[in-house]
Amino acid sequence: MTDAEPSRETTVGELSEGQILRGILDRLPPSSAPVGPGDDAAVLSVPDGRVVATTDTLVHGPDFRLAWSSPFDLGFKAAAVNLADVAAMGARPIALLVALAMPDATPVSFVRGFADGLAAACAELAPGCAVEGGDLTVSDTLTIAVTALGSLDGRAPVRRSGARVGDGVYVIGELGEAARGLDVLFERFTDADGSPVALTAEARDALDAADAKALSRQLTPRPPLAEALRAAASGATAMMDVSDGLALDATRLADASGVTIALDSATLGDDPARALGGGEDHGFLVAFAPDAEPLGRRIGTVVARGAEALTVDGRAWTGRVGWDPYRDWDAGRG
Amino acid sequence: MTDAEPSRETTVGELSEGQILRGILDRLPPSSAPVGPGDDAAVLSVPDGRVVATTDTLVHGPDFRLAWSSPFDLGFKAAAVNLADVAAMGARPIALLVALAMPDATPVSFVRGFADGLAAACAELAPGCAVEGGDLTVSDTLTIAVTALGSLDGRAPVRRSGARVGDGVYVIGELGEAARGLDVLFERFTDADGSPVALTAEARDALDAADAKALSRQLTPRPPLAEALRAAASGATAMMDVSDGLALDATRLADASGVTIALDSATLGDDPARALGGGEDHGFLVAFAPDAEPLGRRIGTVVARGAEALTVDGRAWTGRVGWDPYRDWDAGRG
Repeated sequence: MTDAEPSRETTVGELSEGQILRGILDRLPPSSAPVGPGDDAAVLSVPDGRVVATTDTLVHGPDFRLAWSSPFDLGFKAAAVNLADVAAMGARPIALLVALAMPDATPVSFVRGFADGLAAACAELAPGCAVEGGDLTVSDTLTIAVTALGSLDGRAPVRRSGARVGDGVYVIGELGEAARGLDVLFERFTDADGSPVALTAEARDALDAADAKALSRQLTPRPPLAEALRAAASGATAMMDVSDGLALDATRLADASGVTIALDSATLGDDPARALGGGEDHGFLVAFAPDAEPLGRRIGTVVARGAEALTVDGRAWTGRVGWDPYRDWDAGRG
Repeated sequence: MTDAEPSRETTVGELSEGQILRGILDRLPPSSAPVGPGDDAAVLSVPDGRVVATTDTLVHGPDFRLAWSSPFDLGFKAAAVNLADVAAMGARPIALLVALAMPDATPVSFVRGFADGLAAACAELAPGCAVEGGDLTVSDTLTIAVTALGSLDGRAPVRRSGARVGDGVYVIGELGEAARGLDVLFERFTDADGSPVALTAEARDALDAADAKALSRQLTPRPPLAEALRAAASGATAMMDVSDGLALDATRLADASGVTIALDSATLGDDPARALGGGEDHGFLVAFAPDAEPLGRRIGTVVARGAEALTVDGRAWTGRVGWDPYRDWDAGRG
């Protein structure tokens, strides 16, 4: 290479699917499954004869921006949000399948960072869970579709429909922090046209502690999986991942259970509106019977079904009710 | 509506995720799983304590064109290619998880047709298999990521690595038809710039029987799942889905098994080059021990590992070796 030729990173378009795949698998912990990656399908052990399965997709544009999320962040988040859905059933995550659709021009370093993020999320949030399969293809839009599988280890699944009148309503994890992090991004890391501008390490370092924490919750959520599994073992009657905002998700749990959830705004921190309306918390909303030993913070009570599925301080909630990609994403915004 | 207002279809961008989801679930057969769609995750029964899991993505552009594939076709194909990977392990498909990322402007009728295609593929190819979960999001690029899960029902999985010297090599299903169908599309249904032009019912009716069949194999593949499961029960030593062309897939099976596969071109039909190089067959490549009762057509023999993983008529195969999305897709082509 001469000075006249700027150094240019190798792109995935220059490699075969097999070469890209090896670059990923080399960075992931080894499989302990009966059949791991490399065959037509994986074979996984679920000793009690039941498997828990969920899938969630991250799409460039509505779900993330490469100006803001590092490849590591994306791998971590794609794993974390799916692991949370498995734990919300009371199940222990055992495997991820990762389908990655990338533009030809994606640098190979993206794939390496992404794989490191997947590995880190499994190690930190769900030790023993590994990437046991996946798919690579080309796309104009960077798209990450993850499936997570889990084992109930003999326990009953904890469904949304199990809340009973008189149960206490608890939340495990934080509310509103991820939404605050998204606000930080849109308010401080967009240009005059609303397009994202790069979130540099220097810019992150310049944030105050609260904003830096909120940004971290938005970019690399850390759902408290171990506590969700303890809640399941402690007799939670209903549980769900809080992903689309507390107000919307509590409404869903109430509807599924045929009850009303009565929340007390005084329990929702400094900014109850953000706690209720913000998305991507990836904590857990849990109902416990009155005689159970609950985990988390109590935020309300399950009452007989009334005119509203959800009340806040005794009244219908009329504020923002969470994130719906088909309603809320405006491609023109950035 | 007046004559001055042209009728316009409702788009997914005008509906909530819940409304779109109901439009899909209403068209799918009811779940018989312990926990079906609607919770954070599904819970599925796999009585022998093992689950088979695979994922495959179809992306608009490299994998399909809306000018050529109907919504029904896409639902059918997205299910079929994943069901084939489960069956290639010798497992019975029990569930699909379907992640659908669609542009806002996608008409709601697309979603209905797509759901009908999913349902039809399950009913025809894998009775008892249902869509037990999924995800909807918005994307600039229509993307379909399907995960298929299966049960081995007490049998050992049939891996790629089990072929032994002396085994017969068989294929169940057709070779090269889907590739011929793709040629029909690129040769007759593109404009002067190479962009796809609509494949109308009239145009399909005008095709001769052989081309019409090839087109059908390309757009709505029908992998012979029942025969793959019979092959597994009949003692197949190795099996895989032929998705990327026989030459490439046979090389993979040979590499995994540490053997050489010696094919006889006289067994590969009228166009051996197309049979070897064409992709998306979604038949099954199977090895049977000499004393087994094989299924399918014999196309070769497993021999001791030589300089080449694959030989055709005793020589290395130097023709086209299948489909690699990162090597083969040219966005400029259409």
